[in-house]
Amino acid sequence: MRNIKLTICYDGTNFKGWQIQGNGERTVQGELTKAIRKFTSEKNSIIGSGRTDTGVHASGQVANFKTDKQTEILDIQKALNCAYLPDDISILKIEEVKDSFHAQKSAKQKTYRYRIYNSEQRDPMRRHFFLHYTKKLNVKRMKEEAKAFVGRKDFKSFQATDSSKPHRQENTIRTIKELKITCKGDLIDIDITANGFLYKMVRNIVGTLLEVGVDKLKKGSVKEILKAKDRSQAPATADALGLCLIDVKY
Amino acid sequence: MRNIKLTICYDGTNFKGWQIQGNGERTVQGELTKAIRKFTSEKNSIIGSGRTDTGVHASGQVANFKTDKQTEILDIQKALNCAYLPDDISILKIEEVKDSFHAQKSAKQKTYRYRIYNSEQRDPMRRHFFLHYTKKLNVKRMKEEAKAFVGRKDFKSFQATDSSKPHRQENTIRTIKELKITCKGDLIDIDITANGFLYKMVRNIVGTLLEVGVDKLKKGSVKEILKAKDRSQAPATADALGLCLIDVKY
Repeated sequence: MRNIKLTICYDGTNFKGWQIQGNGERTVQGELTKAIRKFTSEKNSIIGSGRTDTGVHASGQVANFKTDKQTEILDIQKALNCAYLPDDISILKIEEVKDSFHAQKSAKQKTYRYRIYNSEQRDPMRRHFFLHYTKKLNVKRMKEEAKAFVGRKDFKSFQATDSSKPHRQENTIRTIKELKITCKGDLIDIDITANGFLYKMVRNIVGTLLEVGVDKLKKGSVKEILKAKDRSQAPATADALGLCLIDVKY
Repeated sequence: MRNIKLTICYDGTNFKGWQIQGNGERTVQGELTKAIRKFTSEKNSIIGSGRTDTGVHASGQVANFKTDKQTEILDIQKALNCAYLPDDISILKIEEVKDSFHAQKSAKQKTYRYRIYNSEQRDPMRRHFFLHYTKKLNVKRMKEEAKAFVGRKDFKSFQATDSSKPHRQENTIRTIKELKITCKGDLIDIDITANGFLYKMVRNIVGTLLEVGVDKLKKGSVKEILKAKDRSQAPATADALGLCLIDVKY
């Protein structure tokens, strides 16, 4: 059997997240599964590097599936993109990998980008891909305070407390390798790279940085919130629509 | 009566164009009219600088309306943006102008931008705002050939022949003041400024430039097509979704 690795881009706006649901909701994994099964006439399972929530986008999600189909690899990509996938999902790259490759278990590092449009004006063209934040953000303060997130830390204060979610982790220690904030005019990108993320961790970190940016949190707050290991000590979760999974490393 | 000038941005994806239609289709003028009438409790008419087609966007459409409502001008903008308009329309600027100002009749010059994503890959995030063109375009050739469009010319070959349209013009002479093609990686912008445009003129010019870019049209073709004054001599109309009205000058 061949093991096929896919690098995938999607506009999350019209999906109920990545994960297939029993209730017939439209999901990325669901659409991919339909497309691939139609193409191969097999009962393939599609494994993703991880779930993304409703409204979250990806420009570098990774998935894999196994198949006996012998079609030339680039022709599989062409067929999926041109004939089987809807226009809000695209396969950017396709590779044949060794049998042991598992998109979720083999993942070593992920990078998410959170995009903010910081302006008093609404921009209809940006509404699906940027958090619209009207209060002026102090990016210098955000950068300064963000340093406290970097390194091997217990991120318990930044894990969603919704306990009905099956992806809630007992071990809440993760390593953030890089947290980069870049600002170009009224657009702010927050790129976070870690060996793994807890449920809603990026959006909870961004929610906190937003309060730093409007001086609701004083200097040293991030350190204190991390130390508290208590979700209720950190500000609200930032909206899903600004979030994009941009890279997974193996 | 006060005369109010609006500069408007909209994502044209979910509109059947600018113009109100009798059949209840969702249009930009229709949504604006509903919002403004709700706010003023008057029977205001909203005049636009011109129509845009289904799927065409705007970041600088201009409109005006008259009202007896005495609300402070910036509060009108706030109320419309925050409470009355849908999230795919936004008022960027609001001004009180003299009574004689008429968004259509007073317009002296317009600029449209046509955006092309020139790549073999589909990009779901760009699908509503860029024409996806997979064949590699020779931008140098396009720039060279585009020079023939600039100046006072008869653009009859570039006016849509759909004669059922009420906006078909007898006088097909227009002056293109500037036609600028800029290329950044796989993104190509074509900006066209003229004293006025015939129906589908920008999209017909772009359709021709695309054929120039893939060497289907030889050097000097634009000059010949203009001279023919015959729509059937020019290539097909480019898709609406790449088009955006970015500026109207008065």
